[in-house]
Amino acid sequence: MNNLLLASTSTLFGSPYLSYLIPELRLFFRGVNRITFIPYARPGGCTENEYTQKVRHTFGLIDIEVIGLDEVQDPIAVLKESKGIFTGGGNTFLLVQRLYELDLIDPLNFVLDQGIPYLGTSAGSNICGWGMHTTNDMPIVHPPSLRTLGRVPFNLNVHYIEPEKNSTHMGETRETRIREFQEQQNVPVVGLPEGTWLRVLNSEITVKGAHPAVVFPPYESRYDLNTEEKLILHKAP
Amino acid sequence: MNNLLLASTSTLFGSPYLSYLIPELRLFFRGVNRITFIPYARPGGCTENEYTQKVRHTFGLIDIEVIGLDEVQDPIAVLKESKGIFTGGGNTFLLVQRLYELDLIDPLNFVLDQGIPYLGTSAGSNICGWGMHTTNDMPIVHPPSLRTLGRVPFNLNVHYIEPEKNSTHMGETRETRIREFQEQQNVPVVGLPEGTWLRVLNSEITVKGAHPAVVFPPYESRYDLNTEEKLILHKAP
Repeated sequence: MNNLLLASTSTLFGSPYLSYLIPELRLFFRGVNRITFIPYARPGGCTENEYTQKVRHTFGLIDIEVIGLDEVQDPIAVLKESKGIFTGGGNTFLLVQRLYELDLIDPLNFVLDQGIPYLGTSAGSNICGWGMHTTNDMPIVHPPSLRTLGRVPFNLNVHYIEPEKNSTHMGETRETRIREFQEQQNVPVVGLPEGTWLRVLNSEITVKGAHPAVVFPPYESRYDLNTEEKLILHKAP
Repeated sequence: MNNLLLASTSTLFGSPYLSYLIPELRLFFRGVNRITFIPYARPGGCTENEYTQKVRHTFGLIDIEVIGLDEVQDPIAVLKESKGIFTGGGNTFLLVQRLYELDLIDPLNFVLDQGIPYLGTSAGSNICGWGMHTTNDMPIVHPPSLRTLGRVPFNLNVHYIEPEKNSTHMGETRETRIREFQEQQNVPVVGLPEGTWLRVLNSEITVKGAHPAVVFPPYESRYDLNTEEKLILHKAP
């Protein structure tokens, strides 16, 4: 089973943390009064505890209690008993390194297999892909593997953005980088612009939010998927 | 010894490959009529052979012969006998993976210790740093280590760019990403905007080119270094 909400970003420009998603989260976590928070991506180098406090404040607004994995003795046991999970954004390398270090990959998949609701933003969405190979983050640490949870049969590129028109910058575009990855692996990639998310219910994947998702099948032309359209992949990797 | 020219980019917008550096390269490679080219970064997913042909064409214009490491039976032997080396840009993960796979890290350091001229552009510059942790590239492959040649006691961020004024994009800025790295490692980072390069002669490091380099010492304020200014690091990592 799969019951995921995978968002490009936690925060839209000029808005408070998660505020654009709050109406959706009320529905998504309906009946859940406590979630487990995975704080390992540590955006901006904040501590895990600082991150948990921030998330606790926001979920307090919709009467959901937050337990940070930084606050517990036995993260595996807590994960396995979770009724809802949220993994926040930050640095994907740091997040994945910590998940491997604490042996949390299998327990996470175990609990997600039960169909409990999982919210990811940014790095927290990346880890639901086949691998983290299309993150935008810098490799500030060296995880033992780039393979991740594999809840969906593709990789994500979050904060997806087209090149600026009239830009003279010569660094590679997102599309070039994604296509370089696909020279290595026959895996589709889905670019999620800010404000867009994927709603994954078992094998049904629906685009939601402000902007179209951009699908890059290996060796085939990219195409847009508008909000409420479903993602259908011809080949599973 | 160290005799390096580490450029942010090979190509400026609207100009042919390497053309802005050609006057400098005539001086840098004076007396060298053949260089070894390291094609492993494969920009845009081109083949190593395609990359070598492109570089051969450009160096032909200044009467320098090019031997690509893709063209030889014994890359270690060819590297050790080189009178000049060029490592081109592309994907830094791919480049570093291949250097480890072919056991080229030590031979490269051996020959660079002799003071032969080494040109790097983009990924080819990154690998002269302490590590590749501040690359902008996607982790399309998983090298066994992120440590690189350590020819200079800092990391590089090539294609360095400040955030667009008035941008509403919420992806992390370069500075945020660099500071996240420095939460992990006490290593300075030097941002090189396009058109800028570092000239490294033994331990003397001079900024050259169009725009100031931006130095990020760990736990200290960033500062600019203008062209012809020298980089002096208070602490070696």
